[in-house]
Amino acid sequence: MAAATPYDPREFKSLSFHDVVPRFRDGTDNPRAYLERCLETIAAREPVVKAFVATNEAGAREAADASTRRWKAGQPLSPIDGMPIAIKDLLETKDMPTEMGCEALKGNFPKRDNAAVWALREAGAVVLGKTVTAELGGSHPGATTNPFDPARTPGGSSSGSAAAVAARMIPTAIGTQVGGSIIRPAAYCGNVALKPTQGAINRGERQATSMSTHGVHAGNIEDMWQVAIEIARRAGGDRGAPGLFGPPTPPAATKPERLIVLETQGWAELDEASRTAFERLLSTLQRGGIDLLRRKDHPWIEALEQAVADANRIGGMITAWENRWFIRNLVNQHPEGVSTRAQNILRSAEALTPEDYRVMLMDRAIAQQRHAALAQMADAVIQPSCPGPAPLWSGDVPGQPLAPRPTGSSVFNMPSSMLFAPCVTVPLMSVGGMPMGAQLMGQQHQDARITGYARWILGSIEPVVA
Amino acid sequence: MAAATPYDPREFKSLSFHDVVPRFRDGTDNPRAYLERCLETIAAREPVVKAFVATNEAGAREAADASTRRWKAGQPLSPIDGMPIAIKDLLETKDMPTEMGCEALKGNFPKRDNAAVWALREAGAVVLGKTVTAELGGSHPGATTNPFDPARTPGGSSSGSAAAVAARMIPTAIGTQVGGSIIRPAAYCGNVALKPTQGAINRGERQATSMSTHGVHAGNIEDMWQVAIEIARRAGGDRGAPGLFGPPTPPAATKPERLIVLETQGWAELDEASRTAFERLLSTLQRGGIDLLRRKDHPWIEALEQAVADANRIGGMITAWENRWFIRNLVNQHPEGVSTRAQNILRSAEALTPEDYRVMLMDRAIAQQRHAALAQMADAVIQPSCPGPAPLWSGDVPGQPLAPRPTGSSVFNMPSSMLFAPCVTVPLMSVGGMPMGAQLMGQQHQDARITGYARWILGSIEPVVA
Repeated sequence: MAAATPYDPREFKSLSFHDVVPRFRDGTDNPRAYLERCLETIAAREPVVKAFVATNEAGAREAADASTRRWKAGQPLSPIDGMPIAIKDLLETKDMPTEMGCEALKGNFPKRDNAAVWALREAGAVVLGKTVTAELGGSHPGATTNPFDPARTPGGSSSGSAAAVAARMIPTAIGTQVGGSIIRPAAYCGNVALKPTQGAINRGERQATSMSTHGVHAGNIEDMWQVAIEIARRAGGDRGAPGLFGPPTPPAATKPERLIVLETQGWAELDEASRTAFERLLSTLQRGGIDLLRRKDHPWIEALEQAVADANRIGGMITAWENRWFIRNLVNQHPEGVSTRAQNILRSAEALTPEDYRVMLMDRAIAQQRHAALAQMADAVIQPSCPGPAPLWSGDVPGQPLAPRPTGSSVFNMPSSMLFAPCVTVPLMSVGGMPMGAQLMGQQHQDARITGYARWILGSIEPVVA
Repeated sequence: MAAATPYDPREFKSLSFHDVVPRFRDGTDNPRAYLERCLETIAAREPVVKAFVATNEAGAREAADASTRRWKAGQPLSPIDGMPIAIKDLLETKDMPTEMGCEALKGNFPKRDNAAVWALREAGAVVLGKTVTAELGGSHPGATTNPFDPARTPGGSSSGSAAAVAARMIPTAIGTQVGGSIIRPAAYCGNVALKPTQGAINRGERQATSMSTHGVHAGNIEDMWQVAIEIARRAGGDRGAPGLFGPPTPPAATKPERLIVLETQGWAELDEASRTAFERLLSTLQRGGIDLLRRKDHPWIEALEQAVADANRIGGMITAWENRWFIRNLVNQHPEGVSTRAQNILRSAEALTPEDYRVMLMDRAIAQQRHAALAQMADAVIQPSCPGPAPLWSGDVPGQPLAPRPTGSSVFNMPSSMLFAPCVTVPLMSVGGMPMGAQLMGQQHQDARITGYARWILGSIEPVVA
């Protein structure tokens, strides 16, 4: 097995797109050459990282050549014209199959583009491949390994998207989150990522569940925001939602004045080294002049803590109920084609009643009200993005009980999903040589605001190496 | 061509299920025999009415036999155990194709059940067939004719569901509404029908658009409610929605004390005879002791009238935008497989921007606020269900411009869709020998309340024959 490559956030140089664009303008670089560099990295690293389930190199080269001509003519379609991008294999693409990491969907090839994929193509992005997802966006893992240590999970369910960006194969990738499927793998892989406000980026025909979002993995804030806004400017948000609010170029770096530190039920799962690293990060922020508020400082914060204290169960069961018929139909059609993990969740969903679901919706609504009540108290919320660095994972062992969380725990992610709140993770720590993210969470529709804070923090705060 | 059969609401006897159930209990009738009577009617009337695109008679007979055994054992699954029901061909069924009235989807057979269809089977209902829908739930008509006059449209897009019930082929059928696709065809065909609160009945995997609902066509209020609540008790509502509220058996007939008469932009389209018939109905209600309020009586009513005065355009464009990527993908894959009508709507959708969509969402939200403000002013709203009896329709004429509304105008239906408000249509009028409905609209989640009012009105108010 390939060796681990210790991660140091002060040294690591992620792949970037926006800063190459000036060279597309002056002709010293071009999208086709950029794509070829990505393909070289993929060729070198893919055998170990295993980020992709499909690529369309011929189509990508054609798209990159067309983009090269547009830049040469001074007529790019957008600031991301020519950007190679990978798409999580839950989203349909007209030129590649969509198998969702599920045996039962092998060969599924509807030959149509998800609305967000359509928007990316309209903006000139080069759709290069489909990335590994944990089965059906759940917890049963795919083959992808963590680019910094192949013995560890990249996180999930957006496993391939996170790993492809971290391995510098590609500057950005689309992921999706229901529980923690964007933020957690990004945090394990040292990426930045945006899990937007619920509904802010058009999920297209398959609306999946009430807490699922499309989001962006990237090497830096500028590329992350640009991809999100280019999609939203063309395809808008989900049906019934106003879509992503924010400027057409990355929000300026802005210093937050006051942040709320939310512990959530994740606090108990934080390992010692990771908690120490996070507390050191908080101290750095305070020395930088940022006020911090915690649960003991105000009863409304305590009220939110209590409302999300059972977020993992509530969010998991809401989603299991909403996925119930989709997965039941799959299992009926392909009894051998759906993992035991997914079938276990189906079973728990089938034990619920509509009334149980109603109760959980009310729990969720109450948590959202308590979060909204904090809007004037601080600029944003800060939390660890995961309860520690990516765990070791060497696969299921026949005859042994299934590991409950092979792609890591979403305990720090379910709250923002349940609150429909935007969230940006930033790679501000390393613990034991592995990346660990901290996340900023905003009020609904404040995606741009937290992006500006994240940009400031990344530019102004010394990362923690523990 | 077969002759028209004048409709008289005082005489017409629709097919009923709930009143046969006592005979299932005492063994003097059984679900298999009930089904065979339905099949006889279908054999007799289908050649002219053309309500079905597919039937599964073998599967239905098997299900009816199983139901017969359950009734015989005194163990029915629900009050609708053994009820033959038809499903609009927009909803997936595991045993029949789902072609959505669209050439491009010919042969589409995903072999899975929509959540509502699953719930019906769980309740013991006998899923007999798929009914004709206008193409993709839009305005391009299918082959179905009006059971009372084959020269006229049955309405759309739930054309076959409405016609199958009106032709006494089947006691109930599932329809869907975005603009007016449940209420209008029911009104043209002399059925009762429920267009529930937005999200009240689980639409399953394909969440379609933000204003689409599953609803029920029936011959009477009791069967209508029972079908709706049996689905909701098993499959709940849409993801994120609390689902249908109401009792497990049909709400008792309740006399409303005060109704608001809403004119909407439909008023200008009402033909003379239909307006006279509706005003006579209103007079009957007043003589029955029900107070009526109109736009001149209170500025808040006028404010709602103004907020829905452009409902047809706003609702149509919201839906066109939301369907944009689904239809664009279909057209790209099958350029000849989508009607000119649908392609025209796609073109208008592709001229919109996300910002245009946002503006319309705000228009919709304002209308909903103005409707909510009326909650304490009256028990419900009453309106015509359509701007007159079903129009004549003899098909497109090659070389001639396309008729803009071959299945009739949704001008009286878009307001309740836009308001997410529940709506029940009742066959209280005939105009020129054709049925015409009046509709009761409630506040969101008051489906059961307006159902009780509708039941009272049907039982206590003399229909109008004009």
